[in-house]
Amino acid sequence: MAGGLLTDLYELNMAASYFRRDMAGEAVFSLFVRELPPTRGFLVVAGLEHVLSFLEAFDFTEDDLAYLSTIGFDGDSLEAFRQLRFTGDVWAVPEGRLVVANEPLLEVSAPIAEAQLVETYLLNQVTLQTTLATNAARCRSAAGGRIGLLDFSFRRAPGLDAATAMARVCAIVGFSGTSNVDGARRFGVTPGGTMAHSYVQAFRSEEEAFAAFAEDRPGQTTLLVDTYDTMAGVESAIEVIQRLGLGDRASIRLDSGDLAALARSSRRRLDDAGLPQVRIFASGGLDEFEIEHLVQTGAPIDAVGIGTRVAASSEAPTLDSVYKLVSYDGRPVSKLSADKATLPGAKQVLRGSSTSGDVLALRDEVPGPEAEPLLQPVMKGGSRVGEREPLSAARDRFEADLEWLPARARDLRRPEPVSLRLSDRLTQLDLEVRHGVGH
Amino acid sequence: MAGGLLTDLYELNMAASYFRRDMAGEAVFSLFVRELPPTRGFLVVAGLEHVLSFLEAFDFTEDDLAYLSTIGFDGDSLEAFRQLRFTGDVWAVPEGRLVVANEPLLEVSAPIAEAQLVETYLLNQVTLQTTLATNAARCRSAAGGRIGLLDFSFRRAPGLDAATAMARVCAIVGFSGTSNVDGARRFGVTPGGTMAHSYVQAFRSEEEAFAAFAEDRPGQTTLLVDTYDTMAGVESAIEVIQRLGLGDRASIRLDSGDLAALARSSRRRLDDAGLPQVRIFASGGLDEFEIEHLVQTGAPIDAVGIGTRVAASSEAPTLDSVYKLVSYDGRPVSKLSADKATLPGAKQVLRGSSTSGDVLALRDEVPGPEAEPLLQPVMKGGSRVGEREPLSAARDRFEADLEWLPARARDLRRPEPVSLRLSDRLTQLDLEVRHGVGH
Repeated sequence: MAGGLLTDLYELNMAASYFRRDMAGEAVFSLFVRELPPTRGFLVVAGLEHVLSFLEAFDFTEDDLAYLSTIGFDGDSLEAFRQLRFTGDVWAVPEGRLVVANEPLLEVSAPIAEAQLVETYLLNQVTLQTTLATNAARCRSAAGGRIGLLDFSFRRAPGLDAATAMARVCAIVGFSGTSNVDGARRFGVTPGGTMAHSYVQAFRSEEEAFAAFAEDRPGQTTLLVDTYDTMAGVESAIEVIQRLGLGDRASIRLDSGDLAALARSSRRRLDDAGLPQVRIFASGGLDEFEIEHLVQTGAPIDAVGIGTRVAASSEAPTLDSVYKLVSYDGRPVSKLSADKATLPGAKQVLRGSSTSGDVLALRDEVPGPEAEPLLQPVMKGGSRVGEREPLSAARDRFEADLEWLPARARDLRRPEPVSLRLSDRLTQLDLEVRHGVGH
Repeated sequence: MAGGLLTDLYELNMAASYFRRDMAGEAVFSLFVRELPPTRGFLVVAGLEHVLSFLEAFDFTEDDLAYLSTIGFDGDSLEAFRQLRFTGDVWAVPEGRLVVANEPLLEVSAPIAEAQLVETYLLNQVTLQTTLATNAARCRSAAGGRIGLLDFSFRRAPGLDAATAMARVCAIVGFSGTSNVDGARRFGVTPGGTMAHSYVQAFRSEEEAFAAFAEDRPGQTTLLVDTYDTMAGVESAIEVIQRLGLGDRASIRLDSGDLAALARSSRRRLDDAGLPQVRIFASGGLDEFEIEHLVQTGAPIDAVGIGTRVAASSEAPTLDSVYKLVSYDGRPVSKLSADKATLPGAKQVLRGSSTSGDVLALRDEVPGPEAEPLLQPVMKGGSRVGEREPLSAARDRFEADLEWLPARARDLRRPEPVSLRLSDRLTQLDLEVRHGVGH
């Protein structure tokens, strides 16, 4: 699969029409999010690596073309698809950086058919990964370094693709590992995990299960204590940990009930038993709000596994992402649809201090000395600019941007995003293009 | 990729422990949803086909094993993984059928390590596809045959996997097609699509764009009329449709603003222009609630494209799915965790009339003459029972079950699901197992 059919039918219809009319002018498309969900003060950019790999390999296989002929594409169109490769340029905000609404995450400049055909995949991947990275970043921000984070989302992430993306973006935003073994392998992340209730149930008693697991994994023993009665489970765990002398490398895991209260009772019992080094791990439907609560109330929880509610956020399940034509054949264009207007021209985002905010400018504007341009050239003429970078580069950018971000933009409930104003030149161009429509 | 690493690390840890202890007793795991979201009166079962293909092919490649050795698995464990295939049985509710909370969607019986290792993938796929099929079914139910439905979700579905699943489940619940070309090819579904705003913008005027598109696609012309001013767009569309004589096979598409009001104005203008056969197509963030509103208010919309808000439901973004051990080595087991108790034993769901409701029974209970057993044997000894079935079989089951379902269970806001009671034998076994715990 080289990607030619990973698209909506209308992209192919439009491309065929462009070929037929020899319309090969350069189009600039801008990918951005129109509006942040009310609970989001920022987005963490992710997905660019997948976009570049996709564009580098983009073509139609003979199988793809055979299928297209069965749904009505004519010989000339098929031949044009057969010849087609992605030959354009891409400017993008590097992965891990924080942006707000209306700031382009990436811009594609290419002959219009090429730029149009790749829209669907680009939106799909950038939206997925940016959504997940943002969800995970909120957990990271809520945990504030006080509680360690592990990605447990595989089983209920919406598909394998989302599970893989979660493992990746969790590493970008500073999780310590993932339960997803395939994800860990792909991205060089530490795999992590404990035991399931079924393991406890497969033995005749909880004690027997704990002893067996601890014996088999003396270096990394985490005992799940809530299969039957949680505090009785803690007693069994203490017994096994003491007997096998695992006090400095064992943990217990809580997965149900009032996690904060159970963690406090468990901590007391472990300390009383002379096991202050035994760590407490929690899981079970946690999200950023509960992590914040655990931190604020000082619950003695060392680390948590998060999953379902981060792979699909309940208060921001979708992101209003779009991929809009802003220039064709040297002519800046805009769209005036009700509530869906777009601004013309290839753009740049100029970042000032966290108080002065960002400026949405035209790409060729010269930034002032204090402003940092967020969009970088990442592909030229269909080839990547520079080497593939390690995931740690994105993590470093994320950590730096998170530190830069004002506290009010990190609020989990009613954040106030960094402000964005339009440059004078962009405002002027927008007016000109609007007045020129239909003329 | 044969699937061995598509799992959470703890599954591998537990499997290695079972191997080390020669624990090869048959485990029965039950996959079900603990609780329906408040707005859900039923679930549409989907994902079984992927589960069966995965189980048939399940093994560890040498690459998988090499990776596992780098993260601490010993030679004996690696050898056991190398030998492992899925040799178990699966009972399942066929795809397209409707179920409620606590009814197993499938049950796996296999040596415990095998049954455990496949948990993560099974949950991931069944949860994804069932969630999406249920979302799409709500649109189908709301549209009530009055408005045609097309899947437009590819661009904002959470990943390629989710986009592919959407194309598939939309076909199961009676959509007429999908914009997803790869999905259409895979599942033999009709691909569909129109044009984007960018197409209109690439031309010097809307009229020019419409004329070009209509000329290139005289058989299936759908003109997007809202790039600039919607009613002016309708006038341009009328002009082109009349000039090219496409009145019996053209459509217009509305993608922004007050769709119902614009559809009414557009319908009037089209009718006045002598174009009563030109269809009106709508899109733009629609969900089941808006479709219901369009139907109830009689908006003259013939078909809609739905996407973002169905690929990720805003009021039910996650499903509380689990895969729980219910029997090991002939011994029924249960779990007593706070709010997360499970019922012991391999099960059957006996479906009565829509008023008498369903009964959750043990698998070996003999159903009464009026009751239909929902779970069917679909895999024996690692091999599929019967042939791969066409998607139309699932669609037929869905249509029949939707007809069977009482109206109060189809309510989009406060549905009342079909009732489920426990059989006397299951109630008795649950009591016995609870009392036996720890003895």
